[in-house]
Amino acid sequence: MSDTFYIVPEAQHNALVVAAYRHRGFSQEEAEAAARFSAHASRHGIRTHNAIKALHLDHLFGSAAGGCKPCAEIEKKPSRFAASETWNANRKLGQATAYAAMDTAIELADKYGIGQVSVDNAFHYLWGGGYVMEAASRGYIAYTNCTAALAEVVPFMGKFPTLGTNPHSWGFPTTDAVGFPLVVDWATSVVAMGRVQQFAREGKQLPAGAAVDKDGKPTTDPTEVAALTTFGAHKGYGLSLINELVGAFIGGSLPTLRSRWQKQPEEKHTPAFYFQVIHPEAISGGDFALGRDQAANVQAVLADVLGHGNESCILPGQIEADAAKRSDAAGGLLFSKAEIDAFNEIAHECGEPAWRLDAFAVAKDA
Amino acid sequence: MSDTFYIVPEAQHNALVVAAYRHRGFSQEEAEAAARFSAHASRHGIRTHNAIKALHLDHLFGSAAGGCKPCAEIEKKPSRFAASETWNANRKLGQATAYAAMDTAIELADKYGIGQVSVDNAFHYLWGGGYVMEAASRGYIAYTNCTAALAEVVPFMGKFPTLGTNPHSWGFPTTDAVGFPLVVDWATSVVAMGRVQQFAREGKQLPAGAAVDKDGKPTTDPTEVAALTTFGAHKGYGLSLINELVGAFIGGSLPTLRSRWQKQPEEKHTPAFYFQVIHPEAISGGDFALGRDQAANVQAVLADVLGHGNESCILPGQIEADAAKRSDAAGGLLFSKAEIDAFNEIAHECGEPAWRLDAFAVAKDA
Repeated sequence: MSDTFYIVPEAQHNALVVAAYRHRGFSQEEAEAAARFSAHASRHGIRTHNAIKALHLDHLFGSAAGGCKPCAEIEKKPSRFAASETWNANRKLGQATAYAAMDTAIELADKYGIGQVSVDNAFHYLWGGGYVMEAASRGYIAYTNCTAALAEVVPFMGKFPTLGTNPHSWGFPTTDAVGFPLVVDWATSVVAMGRVQQFAREGKQLPAGAAVDKDGKPTTDPTEVAALTTFGAHKGYGLSLINELVGAFIGGSLPTLRSRWQKQPEEKHTPAFYFQVIHPEAISGGDFALGRDQAANVQAVLADVLGHGNESCILPGQIEADAAKRSDAAGGLLFSKAEIDAFNEIAHECGEPAWRLDAFAVAKDA
Repeated sequence: MSDTFYIVPEAQHNALVVAAYRHRGFSQEEAEAAARFSAHASRHGIRTHNAIKALHLDHLFGSAAGGCKPCAEIEKKPSRFAASETWNANRKLGQATAYAAMDTAIELADKYGIGQVSVDNAFHYLWGGGYVMEAASRGYIAYTNCTAALAEVVPFMGKFPTLGTNPHSWGFPTTDAVGFPLVVDWATSVVAMGRVQQFAREGKQLPAGAAVDKDGKPTTDPTEVAALTTFGAHKGYGLSLINELVGAFIGGSLPTLRSRWQKQPEEKHTPAFYFQVIHPEAISGGDFALGRDQAANVQAVLADVLGHGNESCILPGQIEADAAKRSDAAGGLLFSKAEIDAFNEIAHECGEPAWRLDAFAVAKDA
């Protein structure tokens, strides 16, 4: 990277994030969940979902806009299905809700081999990969999807954005096999709208097939973009629809009204979350070749995939694992000057002392 | 379609398919599962996985090659996880195994809200979409994946094929909402190897980014193709890896050895299956806008997605549902002359009377 990165101790980062959320009326427990999550994202190099972004989204759609309710209590619905829970999050902070839901799904998987928690009336949980990565680090196969905040993506062959960027996130407990959890995690659009805005600022063209203009015609000019398209044509479209369907079965309402609280107040406007955890022992047939155990078998399969001339390929999750190694080697979270400036705006908002740039060590090879 | 299609009564089709499987040593129950499955595929217009293809694959990789064992018994492994079963299929016919596994996953979902059946030592189940479509028609959310028979696909940025075409199939119970079950079902490669061979025969070029040559370089010339690529670059690669990982956790062995029984006999060579069923009530929060019930909410969400100028978009599963309508209107399964010729080769193999082309009515608008 060409940017200079400054090493911010995680405790210092977390203290500011907690103060910022407390200042906006969130409980100590919610503020700590938000700090834990953004530290986890920053440690893994996820700059698009750090605390700055989280607080910005909270301002746009969350506690300032009614989409998120500080100190909300989760209501667990009665269920006749032992391995399943459905929750009404009452618009509680997404990070706190997601951590609790994943913990519950893990408890269900411990008992039943597989467990699911569906969450209605949710608020944006930011980066699904973070939750499945943690669950995978604890030894579980984990999955989550959500309906994204805004309809920005056109259906395959369509003209008008009626789908969210609807991400899917899968995590696998592969630390014994390859040193880190494998995390498959992406939006179902080719690019995010933030990327379009970045390209517009930088005067760059988008890749072909990533966006359409106001008439639904393909465009690579970021200033002409009215909506995004799904990756892999009809295949990404199907994957995006899955989130809308799961959301609709849970209780989500029309995607074009999502987060648009001023429109049709008689409808719902919240996203929905879905979490699922599988205990790896519950899918083991116990019959691995050459007397291998399950972890050794997973290792052998991945070595085969990345062998035979494919040694320069990487596994999903590798980039994030490498970023975490750099953070750990530096002894803190790595932020650019622009990011530290943004943290200082946050500090100003909540009356905390500013961070002094010259108080931070500079990372050598971030 | 420009081909002429002949209407073959389903009973006549099924009788021949049963006779063909019985002739190869399969039990009556297995032969009936194979006939039921291929009738279902043909009724829905799935010409790539009809009985002709099924018997051809059985010849190449199955009962003639050792990959499939007629009259094998499924061994259900003991499990401490109530919502999970793991089976050793002992290379039983894939269609019979898959039907039984999906039935069991449905029973588990009825009790626990979600259930999973993992199958080791399996043999090709042909078209995953067929099983999830049936489960969705019965009112369930269903999912399956498998590791494909051969490693034909290179990892993202790789050179050598170490992944199968590894399909994913999801079915949703949307018949009340839109008239048919929504089925998202595709391979994780851009195209299938069969399509490459077809393009080579027809002298056509492949779409860009679908295949590589023997040096791992992209090519659109079907005669130069050494391996396929994943759809959506790293995103399809991640989806393909999921099948290898799930297979590896279940008990599958190295992908480059799969179905290649002559290589390293001390390893395993079988694919693995994974089935999962969710009871839609188990994910319902019960709080749908405007007093809608769950089905009405799903209908409203899908109407929103396909509204606003997107009326010409179709839902995944629509093409198959339309094909089933045409079959039902015709009163039988629709086959071309070339397909009926192939059925007559099958009839010859197992000593059944040939089908007379002039005995079949011609479909008016297939």
